[in-house]
Amino acid sequence: MDEFDFIRDKLAPLAGPEGLKLKDDTAIFSPAQGYDLVLTKDAMVEGVHFPYGEYGGNVAEKLLRVNLSDLAAKGATPLGYLLSLAIPKPVTQAHLNGFTVGLRDVQDAYNFGLWGGDTVSTSGPFVVSATFIGQVPKGQMVKRSGAEIGDDIWVTGTIGDAYLGLQNVLGRTLEPQPTSDQIWHWEEAYLRPEPRLLLRKLFRQFATAALDVSDGLLADAEHLALASDVGLDIELDRVPFSNATQAWLFAQDNRQTAYESLLSGGDDYEVIFTANSKHTQEIKSTAEGLGVSISKVGKVTKPAESIKVVDESGEIIVFEKKGYKHSI
Amino acid sequence: MDEFDFIRDKLAPLAGPEGLKLKDDTAIFSPAQGYDLVLTKDAMVEGVHFPYGEYGGNVAEKLLRVNLSDLAAKGATPLGYLLSLAIPKPVTQAHLNGFTVGLRDVQDAYNFGLWGGDTVSTSGPFVVSATFIGQVPKGQMVKRSGAEIGDDIWVTGTIGDAYLGLQNVLGRTLEPQPTSDQIWHWEEAYLRPEPRLLLRKLFRQFATAALDVSDGLLADAEHLALASDVGLDIELDRVPFSNATQAWLFAQDNRQTAYESLLSGGDDYEVIFTANSKHTQEIKSTAEGLGVSISKVGKVTKPAESIKVVDESGEIIVFEKKGYKHSI
Repeated sequence: MDEFDFIRDKLAPLAGPEGLKLKDDTAIFSPAQGYDLVLTKDAMVEGVHFPYGEYGGNVAEKLLRVNLSDLAAKGATPLGYLLSLAIPKPVTQAHLNGFTVGLRDVQDAYNFGLWGGDTVSTSGPFVVSATFIGQVPKGQMVKRSGAEIGDDIWVTGTIGDAYLGLQNVLGRTLEPQPTSDQIWHWEEAYLRPEPRLLLRKLFRQFATAALDVSDGLLADAEHLALASDVGLDIELDRVPFSNATQAWLFAQDNRQTAYESLLSGGDDYEVIFTANSKHTQEIKSTAEGLGVSISKVGKVTKPAESIKVVDESGEIIVFEKKGYKHSI
Repeated sequence: MDEFDFIRDKLAPLAGPEGLKLKDDTAIFSPAQGYDLVLTKDAMVEGVHFPYGEYGGNVAEKLLRVNLSDLAAKGATPLGYLLSLAIPKPVTQAHLNGFTVGLRDVQDAYNFGLWGGDTVSTSGPFVVSATFIGQVPKGQMVKRSGAEIGDDIWVTGTIGDAYLGLQNVLGRTLEPQPTSDQIWHWEEAYLRPEPRLLLRKLFRQFATAALDVSDGLLADAEHLALASDVGLDIELDRVPFSNATQAWLFAQDNRQTAYESLLSGGDDYEVIFTANSKHTQEIKSTAEGLGVSISKVGKVTKPAESIKVVDESGEIIVFEKKGYKHSI
């Protein structure tokens, strides 16, 4: 099979009208009046973002979900995406079928189309990237900057499940031996993170700053602090963990190391955001109405560009590792 | 250096206002009324699109230029781009400096900004991709489809120089031994193709269909024929060659093979377009006024989805290879 067969047979059926059936080099899009466009681009590499030898639907799902998570945190609605694939020899027809099924599933779940892209061959690892186009009502995009002193810090969902999921996917031993329920829960969190698109209107209405947790809760909190030129005080006992993760955490001898892994592991794709505390009730009831759990984890404070984690007794806990960085 | 240092020190200075100083995960763009957006995404892989071990400004220039060429052929004006880089270990600081100088040079030449993207590490070859956003007055994007029977076929610039440039870059022997002028001319064509943005208004006004020649003149002519559901008759002696290339061509014993290499070699990034013959004089004088050479190479004919190359005596010449395809 060559690139043209693949595009015609597998990708063209996924195209939105903007994609011109993928018969052109470009997509065409007529923006609606009264909206800003929000654009984001994420790349994933075999052996870095997903395990070696993984080429199918899981990779496709994750690629789209992590990009959607960026849009969700900005309060945006996804419209479409451009996809580029650098495909190595070991990728088979079956993998590509699986990959396109993964794309289809996520497109159907969140209602957007494929607009274009590029398919090339490579001698190296599988590299995939997607550029997403979303829209927000004019002037309403939520930025990383904008957090104000005194704001509450909120986190959606639970933190650390994806870190434990990754350990399983990589075949690393977890102690104590996890139950099958725990494994299922963690792997789902790692493989199929839920982009918090349901909350996009809530973020637009109430968030002074937001971003999604991809590198690690502490690292991404620091990104928000840096962009907003504020400090963040996070209360460790308010950080939301799932039952599966809490059970694992409380069985660890070295609790500090365990916390560090969960708070810096990344891949959570939950949203950390700040909001004025006068909106607490509305935020809580809106999220509850949409069936999304949400937790207040701390306060925005004065000392610029720093984050501080405190335990129940108010003591500061120092973590050495805050998140993942690509070394280049 | 980690990804964040690189983004802050090297990429952020290239950001347009839409890029929010690259401090956010996303770009924000307020579309102007009365315009459609044109989006395109091209990826390039070390060892496939550029030689192994090449990581500097040449790669950056080419990546941007090939994407700009797509926009030019659609009649669009570039606004900005998102960049993703999967960077392997052998890439040094000096390479990355060169890479960002290359980006800067092309941005300055064609006036657009960096809006965002993603920088990750890889064990494999260097993989770069860019997603460009351009705009055209509403309804005026030039598609691949739209060529009508009886239209003239035009080609900008000259064909085949990049093919010969690639042979040089790859260290392959060319017979007869080329002069240094020839080598310079061919390598420039290969490394720094000129996106035909100067002609974008001409394409919007007169072209019934257009695309840029990336895979090879014959292959891309076939793409146009397929999308427009027409045939294309190309007269071999009208295909434009530079003096450097003509000198090489006429010194070849196997002229047929030489023609095939030039017409299927690709990487030309010239524009092939079709237009009603009543516009011939306006097309010629507009291109001349802009200092861009342009050649009428044939006619759009009835037999759908086929291309035919004829020599001076009207005899059909059959070429086995039409262009490059990534086998996946």
